[in-house]
Amino acid sequence: MKKPKIVIVGAGFGGLAVVRALHKAAVDIVVIDRRNHHLFQPLLYQVAAAILSPAEIATPVRSLLAGLHNVSVMLGEVNEVDTEARHVQVNIGSRTEQVDYDYLVLATGARHAYFGNDHWEALAPGLKTIDDATAIRNRILLAFERAEMSNDPEEIQRLLTIAIVGGGPTGVEMAGTIAELAHAALSKEFRRIHPEQTRVMLVEGSPRVLASFPEDLSKAAAESLRKLGVEVLEGARVTDCNEAGIVIGNKQVAAGTVIWAAGVKASPAAAWLGVEADQAGRVKVKPDFSIPGRENVFVIGDTAAQTDATGKAVPGVAQGAIQGGEHVGKQILARLAGKPAPAPFRYFNWGNMATIGRHSAVADFGWMKMKGALAWWLWGVVHIMFLIGFRNRIAVMLHWLWSFLTFKRGVRLITGTKT
Amino acid sequence: MKKPKIVIVGAGFGGLAVVRALHKAAVDIVVIDRRNHHLFQPLLYQVAAAILSPAEIATPVRSLLAGLHNVSVMLGEVNEVDTEARHVQVNIGSRTEQVDYDYLVLATGARHAYFGNDHWEALAPGLKTIDDATAIRNRILLAFERAEMSNDPEEIQRLLTIAIVGGGPTGVEMAGTIAELAHAALSKEFRRIHPEQTRVMLVEGSPRVLASFPEDLSKAAAESLRKLGVEVLEGARVTDCNEAGIVIGNKQVAAGTVIWAAGVKASPAAAWLGVEADQAGRVKVKPDFSIPGRENVFVIGDTAAQTDATGKAVPGVAQGAIQGGEHVGKQILARLAGKPAPAPFRYFNWGNMATIGRHSAVADFGWMKMKGALAWWLWGVVHIMFLIGFRNRIAVMLHWLWSFLTFKRGVRLITGTKT
Repeated sequence: MKKPKIVIVGAGFGGLAVVRALHKAAVDIVVIDRRNHHLFQPLLYQVAAAILSPAEIATPVRSLLAGLHNVSVMLGEVNEVDTEARHVQVNIGSRTEQVDYDYLVLATGARHAYFGNDHWEALAPGLKTIDDATAIRNRILLAFERAEMSNDPEEIQRLLTIAIVGGGPTGVEMAGTIAELAHAALSKEFRRIHPEQTRVMLVEGSPRVLASFPEDLSKAAAESLRKLGVEVLEGARVTDCNEAGIVIGNKQVAAGTVIWAAGVKASPAAAWLGVEADQAGRVKVKPDFSIPGRENVFVIGDTAAQTDATGKAVPGVAQGAIQGGEHVGKQILARLAGKPAPAPFRYFNWGNMATIGRHSAVADFGWMKMKGALAWWLWGVVHIMFLIGFRNRIAVMLHWLWSFLTFKRGVRLITGTKT
Repeated sequence: MKKPKIVIVGAGFGGLAVVRALHKAAVDIVVIDRRNHHLFQPLLYQVAAAILSPAEIATPVRSLLAGLHNVSVMLGEVNEVDTEARHVQVNIGSRTEQVDYDYLVLATGARHAYFGNDHWEALAPGLKTIDDATAIRNRILLAFERAEMSNDPEEIQRLLTIAIVGGGPTGVEMAGTIAELAHAALSKEFRRIHPEQTRVMLVEGSPRVLASFPEDLSKAAAESLRKLGVEVLEGARVTDCNEAGIVIGNKQVAAGTVIWAAGVKASPAAAWLGVEADQAGRVKVKPDFSIPGRENVFVIGDTAAQTDATGKAVPGVAQGAIQGGEHVGKQILARLAGKPAPAPFRYFNWGNMATIGRHSAVADFGWMKMKGALAWWLWGVVHIMFLIGFRNRIAVMLHWLWSFLTFKRGVRLITGTKT
């Protein structure tokens, strides 16, 4: 008898959680991703800030799943789904292959959103992939190099201004670590400019940074950032990005590097499926993550808009994707076994954390809040624990230790670009 | 009084050796490089083979020289030298800056040479920079992915054929480590193809691989490679590269990946200086490394054709560049102090080594020859010792240990490319 075929698109946190739930079942699993690696996105900003190497937070999907003999991996891009005929179209180089499924899980994540100003992307890149991170690293490092060579004080000031748009966890973490890079790691290495005078701005449109955290933690984070020399602008709207920098309200601010951390847009899964999406492009899924009219098609993670059984919206973070993936896995198992559906999905919030430089962090566990150095250590332990792969854990710890003890950033390479 | 200004172009082994010799003198030193990092080229093939991360063998030049207060670093590209007016033109982005000098040292290295067939470069990339290495890594890994997805047995066979052109140390080291990657590291990770059946070919035009080593070591190297499953073709000339692969003699061989390790061409320093070059484009320098007619202009390393006081040709390897740089440094010091010139340059050969996979190496010290496992360990110790930067040494050891114990390659990322 042919085993049921489960096709999972996307090898992020959500997709891999489905694999974990199903790999012991009598099913054939195909994992399709357009990249060959699973990415530990929570630490991606450390690649952009020249602390970690890409390979330390990315592991080949094939290597992760090598031991699971009912799982095969395809490197290719899905652009079309036929839910009637039950297959997906996968682009592999110049060729297209059709992959049939009995159950389909779309876990294709999100990209940056520029709120209708897509031309800002080239001026203010966002941070979602390894290539994004190395591109931002290049930009920051090259700005210092250009400033060192310049004789024009105004241009130097512009080049030494880095603006991060968006004060969520990614923006806060970027701002803190870039401030440390400029103010400590690079300070002794230039002869003409003074990197410690770098202006690092964090621009948040809403009244406070870390808006999803309790108010006192937002305040603590803003204070810690200011101690690191970051200009924290709250309630400040970016109305334009241009060659010279950004416009806040109607004031032009000259900035050599602009980094976008202000919002995301789901992958176009809703369009592939021909179903309704919310404003952020997320598929409005049913309580069991399936889509209306198709019980065998599920959407999870950042691509799905979901409210759990208690009425809580599931946030677009790693644990949301993982829990969604586990739930979908359980459901498929139950259906295959002819058992009743599992209990309705309830999102369990393990806690939210954001780090601010090498000394401080904020953590919100609901029943407890933490800030300062202890929260930082906790953040470190949690992130190391969840890093996939033994080698990566050791390498990351080593890099952290080295950068902690020496203030140095070892991964300051400018690559893939003309000088 | 204005201090004499020493301009060094190129922050490779040669350029940095000049800095080391001069940094305590009452001089101003400017180091110009078009990349922001010094590269430990002897281990570059391990980046291409997914063992090491780029940052482990590359260190920012600025960071290396940060403590030397008479040294400044410029990121820019030199394309013109005026030896009459004593200045170099440096391209910095879209701008050009003129840098004056009292003494000039050109240590600008070499690129691959395709013997008049420059269009082969796109088909058969060579290995000189970090970007070269990640591009080759992408190609190899993508070939396996494409093969896994293909239904055409002939195409699969082509994709699973990797040809390395040139049997010098780089070619031998590439062939060994690629064979291990395919035959061991990847063997369990694919479902349809069998990576252990990958055909790895090493094609050498002269009668033996490692032609610069004693004959018995060439033989030992070829044997070790064959044990690893490499097809070693000696006396086999590549007459064409094309979309399908390579032509050996007049026989077309289908290959999905072709890597060029067959020859180098010096940087165009001879053209900048308007002096004579040999066939490989190297400047014919005087015994003291200066150029005819200009006592204050020196060329060292892979860009120079030099014969030492005993009539030995100085080889284009790291130790040749380092010893040339030291000699030039000593000479400049002597001239500045009004002392007689140092003793004529004598090249001291510390020994040549090449590694073949994880188990074997050959080493030639002149007074002693070694091969096998002991030579491998010695190779490892020597390379770790000379790696610049404490962090890099530890990280490299860790990666080697991990890849040695587990057979795995952790740095198998496909980045910067469309699927």
